[in-house]
Amino acid sequence: MNQLHDAQARGFASDNYSGVHPEVLTALGEANGGHQPAYGTDTYTDHLQTVLRRHFGEEAEAFPVFNGTGANVLSLQSLLPRWGAVISAQTAHINTDEGGAPERVGGLKLLTTPTPDGKLTPELIDREAWGWGDEHRAQPLAVSITQTTELGTAYTVDEIRTLSEHVHRHGMHLHLDGSRIANAAVSLGASLRDFTTDAGVDVLSLGGTKNGALGAEAVVVLTPGVVTGMKYLRKLNMQLASKMRFVSAQLLALYDGNLWERNATQANTMAARLRTRLSDGITAGRIHGLEFPYQTQSNGVFARLPREAITRLRERGFHFYDWDVARGEVRWMCSFDTTENDIDAFASAIEQELSTP
Amino acid sequence: MNQLHDAQARGFASDNYSGVHPEVLTALGEANGGHQPAYGTDTYTDHLQTVLRRHFGEEAEAFPVFNGTGANVLSLQSLLPRWGAVISAQTAHINTDEGGAPERVGGLKLLTTPTPDGKLTPELIDREAWGWGDEHRAQPLAVSITQTTELGTAYTVDEIRTLSEHVHRHGMHLHLDGSRIANAAVSLGASLRDFTTDAGVDVLSLGGTKNGALGAEAVVVLTPGVVTGMKYLRKLNMQLASKMRFVSAQLLALYDGNLWERNATQANTMAARLRTRLSDGITAGRIHGLEFPYQTQSNGVFARLPREAITRLRERGFHFYDWDVARGEVRWMCSFDTTENDIDAFASAIEQELSTP
Amino acid sequence: MNQLHDAQARGFASDNYSGVHPEVLTALGEANGGHQPAYGTDTYTDHLQTVLRRHFGEEAEAFPVFNGTGANVLSLQSLLPRWGAVISAQTAHINTDEGGAPERVGGLKLLTTPTPDGKLTPELIDREAWGWGDEHRAQPLAVSITQTTELGTAYTVDEIRTLSEHVHRHGMHLHLDGSRIANAAVSLGASLRDFTTDAGVDVLSLGGTKNGALGAEAVVVLTPGVVTGMKYLRKLNMQLASKMRFVSAQLLALYDGNLWERNATQANTMAARLRTRLSDGITAGRIHGLEFPYQTQSNGVFARLPREAITRLRERGFHFYDWDVARGEVRWMCSFDTTENDIDAFASAIEQELSTP
Amino acid sequence: MNQLHDAQARGFASDNYSGVHPEVLTALGEANGGHQPAYGTDTYTDHLQTVLRRHFGEEAEAFPVFNGTGANVLSLQSLLPRWGAVISAQTAHINTDEGGAPERVGGLKLLTTPTPDGKLTPELIDREAWGWGDEHRAQPLAVSITQTTELGTAYTVDEIRTLSEHVHRHGMHLHLDGSRIANAAVSLGASLRDFTTDAGVDVLSLGGTKNGALGAEAVVVLTPGVVTGMKYLRKLNMQLASKMRFVSAQLLALYDGNLWERNATQANTMAARLRTRLSDGITAGRIHGLEFPYQTQSNGVFARLPREAITRLRERGFHFYDWDVARGEVRWMCSFDTTENDIDAFASAIEQELSTP
Repeated sequence: MNQLHDAQARGFASDNYSGVHPEVLTALGEANGGHQPAYGTDTYTDHLQTVLRRHFGEEAEAFPVFNGTGANVLSLQSLLPRWGAVISAQTAHINTDEGGAPERVGGLKLLTTPTPDGKLTPELIDREAWGWGDEHRAQPLAVSITQTTELGTAYTVDEIRTLSEHVHRHGMHLHLDGSRIANAAVSLGASLRDFTTDAGVDVLSLGGTKNGALGAEAVVVLTPGVVTGMKYLRKLNMQLASKMRFVSAQLLALYDGNLWERNATQANTMAARLRTRLSDGITAGRIHGLEFPYQTQSNGVFARLPREAITRLRERGFHFYDWDVARGEVRWMCSFDTTENDIDAFASAIEQELSTP
Repeated sequence: MNQLHDAQARGFASDNYSGVHPEVLTALGEANGGHQPAYGTDTYTDHLQTVLRRHFGEEAEAFPVFNGTGANVLSLQSLLPRWGAVISAQTAHINTDEGGAPERVGGLKLLTTPTPDGKLTPELIDREAWGWGDEHRAQPLAVSITQTTELGTAYTVDEIRTLSEHVHRHGMHLHLDGSRIANAAVSLGASLRDFTTDAGVDVLSLGGTKNGALGAEAVVVLTPGVVTGMKYLRKLNMQLASKMRFVSAQLLALYDGNLWERNATQANTMAARLRTRLSDGITAGRIHGLEFPYQTQSNGVFARLPREAITRLRERGFHFYDWDVARGEVRWMCSFDTTENDIDAFASAIEQELSTP
Repeated sequence: MNQLHDAQARGFASDNYSGVHPEVLTALGEANGGHQPAYGTDTYTDHLQTVLRRHFGEEAEAFPVFNGTGANVLSLQSLLPRWGAVISAQTAHINTDEGGAPERVGGLKLLTTPTPDGKLTPELIDREAWGWGDEHRAQPLAVSITQTTELGTAYTVDEIRTLSEHVHRHGMHLHLDGSRIANAAVSLGASLRDFTTDAGVDVLSLGGTKNGALGAEAVVVLTPGVVTGMKYLRKLNMQLASKMRFVSAQLLALYDGNLWERNATQANTMAARLRTRLSDGITAGRIHGLEFPYQTQSNGVFARLPREAITRLRERGFHFYDWDVARGEVRWMCSFDTTENDIDAFASAIEQELSTP
Repeated sequence: MNQLHDAQARGFASDNYSGVHPEVLTALGEANGGHQPAYGTDTYTDHLQTVLRRHFGEEAEAFPVFNGTGANVLSLQSLLPRWGAVISAQTAHINTDEGGAPERVGGLKLLTTPTPDGKLTPELIDREAWGWGDEHRAQPLAVSITQTTELGTAYTVDEIRTLSEHVHRHGMHLHLDGSRIANAAVSLGASLRDFTTDAGVDVLSLGGTKNGALGAEAVVVLTPGVVTGMKYLRKLNMQLASKMRFVSAQLLALYDGNLWERNATQANTMAARLRTRLSDGITAGRIHGLEFPYQTQSNGVFARLPREAITRLRERGFHFYDWDVARGEVRWMCSFDTTENDIDAFASAIEQELSTP
């Protein structure tokens, strides 16, 4: 095999379009050679427990899995009885982007609620948090939040603490989909623990892939005893890696040192740079017809601009996703490998396309 | 991170205990850098189609997934309506080692039958191939065979052709669990195509992980039109890799050249060496109390020996699995990285432990 | 056994609280005696096909089941592939009152949308009708409407025709939850066929239980070829009655003559009487603090009134459900056995409790 | 509607082909009239608890359902976590006749074992009772037996006690599929409690339909605390009757007095009469080529006889099922309404067809 792609080309489509951070590749090499027990009893997975307990507290327990959908379904299924339902934002990844896996594989019902910015509040939760004891209603027994959200916004530490208290007061559990958890920590200037374990989150989907891993996520149980049968569920949900040492090695590459933080800092900084450059352009009257529907608190910038401008930017070779066609929203994602030059070139192109009032 | 294990230690527990072939690691590096579309529209996954069509024919279509359980459940679910059942050997991996994933995630019923050597025959299939049209009976609509089998035996090309004709005559489809398909081809001296596409197999679980990949398998549809909705099923079954280029790159490393064959040849040859050395020892009267219940046609040697000898071999540091405790069977697996020295040291130890009549 | 309840007591809780119409009991006796094939090949189930084709057209095919949840899940599952999703109103029974059965047993995802009155429109459907071909999105392939709706409103024939055209234009199918289909026909002054087969509905959940049966519903497939494997799905979904002749006999008692119409007429008329009496009271200034959030087009009256009045009415022995506690909504249901005296006594009580401005 | 069938015709196909005992119909009439709470809070369902506690002990708790498949799936699902497996005989109804509902709806894996006569023993259980703690193996956590078995045989009280001790010693639970539990009690001369609660059975599927009910079964939990969430599971598994009073009334008709016993006695006696008449014929040399593979300990007689004789008996108008075509086995079932004349006419016909050596 040879290289079949242009290793210098980068876009703004998704943090999944980027590759693997070199330190992650190095870690794979170090974990290689010799024989190690399969299915998670290897030394790398063992060391991962130690490393993640440093981040999430002495009672945290980690279960590496293949991908984010797997982490989310496994987290929620392990938290809930067969009759359980999960309250989430309507925009939550578990509702919009997992092909119905939570329902079909997890056997869960989602109770979703619209939000202005992808973030739940106690009031929004209460729209669906009722009906316990009535067998006609799927029982709301967990709440799932995403941090940072699918709209690039971040819950503050206080907001999550308030949510968890509310959730626990109702006898429910709190799950956090942390596929971009590193971006959240960097955005908040907080430790990973501040807004998870210490804020009352019970179970966490810990992200790796979007932050420079090849393909590695983990369910991290923060509240002991809140789940049961996790090892069986991981297997039967087809998320048990045979050569797990290589999944764990990726997470070690990120979380044993500060690579998680460096990668997220770069991605967030580039998104902030893009937002700032464009905002400045708007303020200065150089850019017309561009709006930002949400705050930029992570590595993604969401924007509304005319359809023709979108088309022309793509014709220039810039890749990005439509987010909400009806509202004319697009998403511009930055990654750990996005450079200042990438931003500047893109911002200039946008400015050119939107220069006319 | 640093190396946390002894990269020279090897055992006979499983081909999953070995690591990644260096050429696979190199391929990961080559696929790295720049941005590539996620979820399978990258150049590596595209090229994989070409490569696998070279092996399996111009109509083959490949869907890379994370692991063997995923490949099997996806294959079978895509072949079957919601009321379908799968006939397999009682020893089939789908029945014994997947935590019930075919039933629970796939919604399938397995109709299993005992076999002398892990291999189905038309007669054995017919024990369960009946009851079509009766809604009380889960409808037998597919047959799944494993090549090489979980007992280290291999179907001949003719045997598979006979099976497929029988299966198709009944309006059923034939699935082949090829987690060790490379070992089978090498054992048979056949091309991959000889005993799959050309022998009437409809859908294939193509193995990579046990043959030197990090974690890469694929569903390969051989008979066009026999499945539907595969891309949706892969997603909802949580087997869709976001950075798929790296899964495909592993399979390219194996199948674009002949690494698949070199690796399997090494593993098979080492198993044959072990079997031969021990058989010679038995014949020459140097080894007592050792029996081989099955032929060695792949990279695993199954043996019966006294429990005390098993214990002492483990005390000497040799790792291997109990296979059937009731029958005193153990399994000794070789891998792509098993060496002649490994075999000779192990064979000598066995000979020493079983020297007394 | 003796009678253990007061056979004269009636309330306004649910049309499920009423018993069985005497003609239905008679039909059970007529179907009794001798042996008849089990599982649906009896003469009563056979005759039911003829009777229902008279109502729904020569291509209709009926599958009797036990209850409404069974009819709905079976209808939708048979319409959809494993990756399908169903668009419905947020207030739909399948979303709110079936304990998650569509998701858990059917493996379906629901895409729900708020409605002002329980009724979908093309515009409301379009909020969720998108994303075909994208495997990340559960594929919207069916729309389910309820007639009459859970809020007591009725779609007109034209509205359903417009919906079905819209639904079919998108390549989706239309399901109608007709647990109160008789009430709808009576309300519209239409035949059962007018707003089902002839209006483009593909599959129907035909109600019996709420209209005087003991426990009998049916899936009726109106568009030939739109479903597959129904007989297998009914069995594996645990909805196949062994002594099916008695389920079919109930539906025959309702639909072979005009009992379906007589029963629904009585229930609707009583609801209208209640609404009229109370509206007159409001207009005349004798009733204060009472509002009707929806039209009364069926056998249920929905009302908003002060919590204290609700409590006092219950203390007087009147039974009815809270519908939406947050909005102070209650539901007053009439049944085939509700009498004018029942209505007048209840209306008087309400008037007394709400007499003070 | 009028009577559409011959109410005097009876056969030997199934105890499901018979109708409803007149006392059951009477009970439906007594339960009718007035309004009663739906979904199980009616006075009949309440009284059923009292009646069944008289039979099964003060801690028994009953959950009426629609049919046997529902009772079995609900029983087993409520006993098991999502990773559980059930050990049963290969001939068990849950394995052979429920269209895969235990796997597909219950999400359970069945671990089946061949038996000589449909009855499990500790030794047969042990073939599958292993592998706890290994996530690759579906965890065997319950054993299901059928009493009387699908082959017409009955476990003795001691056999069940021995089984339950064995099962509990392994930390598993014992389920009894009692769709013909009345026939078993009569056959054993035991109370219902003797071989259930007092013999260590944890959860019971209590039969009604095959013993003269219209359609009524119940899950009866015998060991308190052994299940959780039953009310939710019954609803989400689509087994919750809205007008439950009529399901409970049927069970009251059977179990409040001794109708259960009278009906089963008649059915068993008729089967014994048939077996005796034919055995006598064989002994006396009047019947040739007839064999009985199993004991007749219930209401079914299993027989092997030449295919031509089977055909001719059917041509004479006698209805019965092939049981195992490969072995030439047929099943002759008696019901509560089978008469001595029915038996004598059938026995004579058999004798005539098998008179030639």
